[in-house]
Amino acid sequence: MLCLQCETKPTWISVANAHHDLILIDHAHCEKKAAAFGLSMINRYPSHIKLVHEMIDLVKEEIEHFELVVNELEARGIKLTRDTGNDYVKELHTHMAHNEPERMLDLLIVGAFIEARSCERFSILAAHCEHEDLRALYKSLLASEAGHYRMYTDIAREYYPVERVKQRLQEFGEIEASIVQSLTDKPTMHG
Amino acid sequence: MLCLQCETKPTWISVANAHHDLILIDHAHCEKKAAAFGLSMINRYPSHIKLVHEMIDLVKEEIEHFELVVNELEARGIKLTRDTGNDYVKELHTHMAHNEPERMLDLLIVGAFIEARSCERFSILAAHCEHEDLRALYKSLLASEAGHYRMYTDIAREYYPVERVKQRLQEFGEIEASIVQSLTDKPTMHG
Repeated sequence: MLCLQCETKPTWISVANAHHDLILIDHAHCEKKAAAFGLSMINRYPSHIKLVHEMIDLVKEEIEHFELVVNELEARGIKLTRDTGNDYVKELHTHMAHNEPERMLDLLIVGAFIEARSCERFSILAAHCEHEDLRALYKSLLASEAGHYRMYTDIAREYYPVERVKQRLQEFGEIEASIVQSLTDKPTMHG
Repeated sequence: MLCLQCETKPTWISVANAHHDLILIDHAHCEKKAAAFGLSMINRYPSHIKLVHEMIDLVKEEIEHFELVVNELEARGIKLTRDTGNDYVKELHTHMAHNEPERMLDLLIVGAFIEARSCERFSILAAHCEHEDLRALYKSLLASEAGHYRMYTDIAREYYPVERVKQRLQEFGEIEASIVQSLTDKPTMHG
């Protein structure tokens, strides 16, 4: 699926099903952080006008999804608790280049992988979540995560040679797969 | 005007008119930072559901305004340059309480003052900017800044005693006025 080099372990869905409230809360935080990431990219690269416009659209979509999930939490009487961080994303960040122009490429590639993995997890939840209405919610969000993956890789190809983007997708694909394989089935979107 | 205890010095508009491109760029960054502030408030106070919903609406509106200003910059062939920071906001922050529950109140009050001062500056630009089409832009944005001021103070009154909010608006009014009076007429929204 997309650029992913490994699938989520089949055991994750049991943990997700046992804690669908925690998955929803974590999902809300993921949407919020995706919006914040879009703003931080604008902040870093204000003169990259194509990137700026794509990030504006991203922020709009992510905040709408955040609202959707917050409403879902409220309807279910689940309180949005504090964001406890995301070890998967933190681990990905440790592999990024520190200096430009490689830093921007890596930020885009890591953004792409986070969206791709979310997309894969949504497809699992859309098929196997025990709550029918949540399956519909996850199905409705799946397409946009895939769209965001493409958006990040498109921006990368706009500013970097196609071959370099392909190479970095391959390298981060290996890194991401090894992170996912080391995860211990937590009830979070990337856990 | 609103909670403001002093008016902008009449000399500021000459500087703003001489650098309308820098004012527009700074304005874009203000909208972007207002959206980022909304997300950071959600991050800090996720269980305050009224605050979360208001911040969702705020982020949506601020990112739309950011897009509006970015489009205006593009139409004029002005490049969005890096955000150089905002000394006025930095100075306000030094006066905020560090511990809860006072911290949240001060964040809301400071948010209110930034919006109120933006509103006052927009009213000056709407009346005195040398470019007719920019006067229209500033006029169109003026009302929403006033709306955001009210939104911040309404949230404050939702979570804190009315008298305490009134007192803190008075205290920060004095602080804000003394900061504004010390400014040296820079071509920025709060300069």
